[in-house]
Amino acid sequence: MGIEIERKFLVRDTHMLAGQQGAFLSQGYLSHTPDATVRVRISGEQAFLTVKGRNQGARRAEFEYPVPIEDARALLLLCPAGHIEKTRYRIPVAEYVWEVDVFHGANEGLIVAEVELPDEHAPITLPAWAGEEVTDDPRYYNSALSLHPFREW
Amino acid sequence: MGIEIERKFLVRDTHMLAGQQGAFLSQGYLSHTPDATVRVRISGEQAFLTVKGRNQGARRAEFEYPVPIEDARALLLLCPAGHIEKTRYRIPVAEYVWEVDVFHGANEGLIVAEVELPDEHAPITLPAWAGEEVTDDPRYYNSALSLHPFREW
Repeated sequence: MGIEIERKFLVRDTHMLAGQQGAFLSQGYLSHTPDATVRVRISGEQAFLTVKGRNQGARRAEFEYPVPIEDARALLLLCPAGHIEKTRYRIPVAEYVWEVDVFHGANEGLIVAEVELPDEHAPITLPAWAGEEVTDDPRYYNSALSLHPFREW
Repeated sequence: MGIEIERKFLVRDTHMLAGQQGAFLSQGYLSHTPDATVRVRISGEQAFLTVKGRNQGARRAEFEYPVPIEDARALLLLCPAGHIEKTRYRIPVAEYVWEVDVFHGANEGLIVAEVELPDEHAPITLPAWAGEEVTDDPRYYNSALSLHPFREW
């Protein structure tokens, strides 16, 4: 078990992605309840089953287990709602590495940046390309995006 | 991934449990949707996270992963509905070992026997203590019992 503390921002422009290599992620949700989301994710040749507890501001409990990729493919077929597909870029900004997610499919057009922090009150250096903070906006939870994708907002 | 093929019966009498050692199981559900239940189970010093697909008669997909017991204790706290507690006895009957679950708490009074089979059409020897078959009755799914326990029926 771990505690994930993460702040999330919209992305104003994508010049910092030029020339970067991203990782294609495909994921779905076996459970969407706010108390506990259960995510299946395939990233390259790796796959994970991840349980996350309810968000309390930027903080939530997280439990992640590697699973065989064949299992993950079959588990994705059990996910009741839409899948999320996105390309993730890791962009160092001062003391942290930000994860910039460029969404595809039904969430095409959405680009979000997340930074994981050691505690909620850790100071961060906001890059110029980071826009509005959406940490507390449940529409941007990936579990919510699988049910109510960005292009339908 | 595996396929679980299981038939389930009510239990008429419990004389076959006399002198047997049972294992206390505590479990909860992170997801109750029929398409995919996600179960957390603690059995003695072992714990598992298990995803099961939709029942198709006696058959369903099953994915089981061992998890640290400390994780399982924390995951049980995330389960939105009631927990299931039961004592499981393993009773050999002819060619198979039956699992007899004696429920506690809100499901006290319910005793169910399950037998796992290599295929749906495998012949089984029905012991005298096995009563009505409830394989296809969704009220007896453990995920359903956590939401609508036997004593409230």
